[in-house]
Amino acid sequence: MITRMSELFLRTLRDDPADAEVPSHKLLIRAGYIRPVGPGLYSWLPLGLRVLHKIERVVREEIVAIGGQEILFPALLPRAPYEATNRWTEYGDSLFRLKDRRDNDYLLGPTHEELFALTVKGEYSSYKDFPLLLFQIQTKYRDEARPRAGILRGREFVMKDSYSFDVDDDGLRVAYQRHREAYQRIFDRLGVRYVIVSAVSGAMGGSASEEFLAESDIGEDTFVRCLESGYAANVEAVVTPAPDPLPIDGLPEAKVYDTPDAPTIATLVEWANTVDLGREITAADTLKNVLLKVRQPDGDWELLAIAVPGDREIDDKRLGAALDPAEYAFLDDADFAKHPFLVKGYVGPKALRENGVRYLVDPRVVDGTSWITGADAPNKHVVGLVMGRDFTADGTIEAAEVRDGDPSPDGAGPLVSARGIEIGHIFQLGRKYTDAFNVDVLGEDGKPVRLTMGSYGIGVSRLVAVIAEQHHDELGLRWPSSVSPFDAHVVIANKDEAARAGAGELAAELDRLGVEVLLDDRSSSPGVKFKDAELLGVPWIVVVGRGWADGVVELRNRFSGETREVPVDGAAAAIAEALTS
Amino acid sequence: MITRMSELFLRTLRDDPADAEVPSHKLLIRAGYIRPVGPGLYSWLPLGLRVLHKIERVVREEIVAIGGQEILFPALLPRAPYEATNRWTEYGDSLFRLKDRRDNDYLLGPTHEELFALTVKGEYSSYKDFPLLLFQIQTKYRDEARPRAGILRGREFVMKDSYSFDVDDDGLRVAYQRHREAYQRIFDRLGVRYVIVSAVSGAMGGSASEEFLAESDIGEDTFVRCLESGYAANVEAVVTPAPDPLPIDGLPEAKVYDTPDAPTIATLVEWANTVDLGREITAADTLKNVLLKVRQPDGDWELLAIAVPGDREIDDKRLGAALDPAEYAFLDDADFAKHPFLVKGYVGPKALRENGVRYLVDPRVVDGTSWITGADAPNKHVVGLVMGRDFTADGTIEAAEVRDGDPSPDGAGPLVSARGIEIGHIFQLGRKYTDAFNVDVLGEDGKPVRLTMGSYGIGVSRLVAVIAEQHHDELGLRWPSSVSPFDAHVVIANKDEAARAGAGELAAELDRLGVEVLLDDRSSSPGVKFKDAELLGVPWIVVVGRGWADGVVELRNRFSGETREVPVDGAAAAIAEALTS
Repeated sequence: MITRMSELFLRTLRDDPADAEVPSHKLLIRAGYIRPVGPGLYSWLPLGLRVLHKIERVVREEIVAIGGQEILFPALLPRAPYEATNRWTEYGDSLFRLKDRRDNDYLLGPTHEELFALTVKGEYSSYKDFPLLLFQIQTKYRDEARPRAGILRGREFVMKDSYSFDVDDDGLRVAYQRHREAYQRIFDRLGVRYVIVSAVSGAMGGSASEEFLAESDIGEDTFVRCLESGYAANVEAVVTPAPDPLPIDGLPEAKVYDTPDAPTIATLVEWANTVDLGREITAADTLKNVLLKVRQPDGDWELLAIAVPGDREIDDKRLGAALDPAEYAFLDDADFAKHPFLVKGYVGPKALRENGVRYLVDPRVVDGTSWITGADAPNKHVVGLVMGRDFTADGTIEAAEVRDGDPSPDGAGPLVSARGIEIGHIFQLGRKYTDAFNVDVLGEDGKPVRLTMGSYGIGVSRLVAVIAEQHHDELGLRWPSSVSPFDAHVVIANKDEAARAGAGELAAELDRLGVEVLLDDRSSSPGVKFKDAELLGVPWIVVVGRGWADGVVELRNRFSGETREVPVDGAAAAIAEALTS
Repeated sequence: MITRMSELFLRTLRDDPADAEVPSHKLLIRAGYIRPVGPGLYSWLPLGLRVLHKIERVVREEIVAIGGQEILFPALLPRAPYEATNRWTEYGDSLFRLKDRRDNDYLLGPTHEELFALTVKGEYSSYKDFPLLLFQIQTKYRDEARPRAGILRGREFVMKDSYSFDVDDDGLRVAYQRHREAYQRIFDRLGVRYVIVSAVSGAMGGSASEEFLAESDIGEDTFVRCLESGYAANVEAVVTPAPDPLPIDGLPEAKVYDTPDAPTIATLVEWANTVDLGREITAADTLKNVLLKVRQPDGDWELLAIAVPGDREIDDKRLGAALDPAEYAFLDDADFAKHPFLVKGYVGPKALRENGVRYLVDPRVVDGTSWITGADAPNKHVVGLVMGRDFTADGTIEAAEVRDGDPSPDGAGPLVSARGIEIGHIFQLGRKYTDAFNVDVLGEDGKPVRLTMGSYGIGVSRLVAVIAEQHHDELGLRWPSSVSPFDAHVVIANKDEAARAGAGELAAELDRLGVEVLLDDRSSSPGVKFKDAELLGVPWIVVVGRGWADGVVELRNRFSGETREVPVDGAAAAIAEALTS
């Protein structure tokens, strides 16, 4: 079926919308693919919906190809299952909650682990029924604090979420690996440039969770990678390589100094370089003790001290991931006042250990390292305090920032940071949800087996923006052919009646050859039409213009900018061939 | 792609679910097409989702074929547009309302007239852009008071809603007619038995609104039709044929009688037959005056009296439709007390007219008809009160019940009533929504033109249940091939390895011929497999059974019950041909 621009519900805009900051948002609005309805809420106009549907199709095909069976849950869900897993509360403000006419609680589903686990429990009862892979392509809801960048971070969005169910960990690993490969095929087919990053620390069990990040300067996710080895990880997941312990014997004794007016690292370093300590002192020689309180399962707050080299800040995301899911807060003045042994600005390991405060150190704080740190008295610091001799710790913690140039955990070279947009997430969930609902089946040995789950998501509607973000130029969008709303954009740039009629015939012939054609049959000037064609971004533009009289049409590639002439006779076949080659 | 029962996420149930009352609900649950998640909320399991998607495809094709352009709005919508049309309030308890984290009001869209009108206003500005037809296939929400019958009346459901925009009434009529024909094609393709009924009185402007009702005894909608002419209408839309006026000259004078203890029609008729009035008196000879109060636009209540022949009740739906959208209530004792001229049980036209009460009569009350009615005094009635001589009215009203045997408005014969399920609604909306948002475009004469709209809906998910309701037998579902989850259900009913392998090859060959195959490769007994095949309802069942040794497979038609044998050689081609013939 040929789509005619004269009839297409489309008005392109010359100017960028006032509230749009990123290129994909500006272009998708200007090119008439989407329109805002409210904060984080967009309507899909005909061109945008075509792209969305094409992405859905690619995703569906690849998940079906690995054995996925499509089902569909309601978006409107009762509270009870989410209460059972505590996510009714945990989601906080980002969950849309509502009541029905009988005053019962409901939510708009942000993700459906609970429902999938309960449904499998309801249907299946034997190990013979597994492995099982279910998925849906569904509209989901999150009340984002800051909806941004158009459909990149909306409040209503389309996701593909799949869930694997297995009777053992080996099965889960297979399902996970299959998804990993299917996701690579999907993003390759969609023309997305991406990296796969570890999403949780390797210390927690290998690649139990990875994210697919589309490379983009406007991404909200920071990741680091080693260009030498290809290692890539979310900053939360970076494991600091611990140096080897150093010999302790022969190290000078620790000595307490008066350090007036040096409560910060900067002032401390300045002081240290006025005293002769035998070498140049930098912030990396100091040890910063940061005090937090962490909520315990019984509801009480417990003190926690974290020691990091003075040249590094605490990274909130890494700290949060390390303490997850516990709630925590930095100590305020009132908290300090309650614990007189904590001398603000001069806290050291000694008082912490003597008073039983849980004490975790950065992995760089190995035995034999010597530090300048607080001496637990106002205006006093200790120099030469040696780990493993003068103090010890309860363990290590990955809370210090990761910096460009830090060594890659695999030892292959330095890390560099980049930004990305999360487009996929694969996760070996394990038994969190099957435990919550006692999802057991009869095992081969006749005993109950608790199922293990994987959860795998793709942000389908977000991908429309991601692809637009990665593929555009100053003139407009440039769709990969797998997702373009049309295969060919035939522009009538000749007022001659014969040329117009010929263009119509060419479009009809292309249509018969299975090419999806957008025909610009409007009465506008060729200049307006070319501008629109460049803005809309269909990968092949066929111009029926001045060459018509000489028996040729022009074939433009929106990606490469290449242009060539094709004889009118046999043009459709030649164009159809160019499209598939 | 062949679907294997050994892997399909499906468990059929032997027993009807406890809460299911109608056949489609029972069978869709038992056959594993849907599962309940909450009141009026269902998940679609693989088979159900396949049927839903097939229906969506048929609907999409036919709406695109009449020029529809598909777009997609959010389901989560801001309050403002619905406030502007007063539907935020009018929807009452059936609207799901919620707040976001900033305490702003949102709703889950029950229908999208507002958004479509606003979107067209945002994009288009000239008469040249019209006619325009937009549609979406979308999940919608209504907080039904009594969700019932599974997906027949759910709270989350899929609808196709389209909207036409035209610059004049002729355009609207064309768009309406095209939809009417497209709907006929859709329901014909889906194998639905349906009637088209007038949904509003013809007096309001021809067929400005029609409903498509699937014939079903379990339907919630009552309609009447004339079997002679094919006329069909909702009871609200039936226009009572008015008899010709009768000559007044020579009619006896009205006379007031004492009628002690006769405040009801029954007691009045009993009394009338004890007095000699020259003929047998029935309730149809009496005139019942019913008192209401109707809310005026200024908020005040105004009295309204409605007169109907004493043998007919007031029909609430017809009365509501006649007064729509005004709020109204029947007078209670306190109201009567406020108006002493209203003598309860003995109200007559005289006091009503003298006191200026608005007075509407049933269309059967024509000039020259003579009535026994109240005389406005306790225990007194008047006999022989003649319309057009002794009293007049302000107009007529369609409020009396319609009964089987009433004459059809087209004069062709008697009406009979039947029940149906609403599956489609087409409606010439006119300018209600374009007025609300001032949706004007520049007309051909350079002056602004207010657009006129039509709205057209199909209950897509409901159709799954409707088709199941119309097509089933005591053994299970029976899908028309256009919506069946599979084209053929190949049952391996032979434990012989060669037969099993042969069945697999047959399925593969059918798959290559484009036949969607469900292959029952389970180790269950043939009896279990046949029962499941009958329950699931795929229209063609291919049995690879005992005949295999003799070189034949069995082809069963689930609709007709016919069975025939097909030689194994060339079986796939023969079956594929049978499927398309």
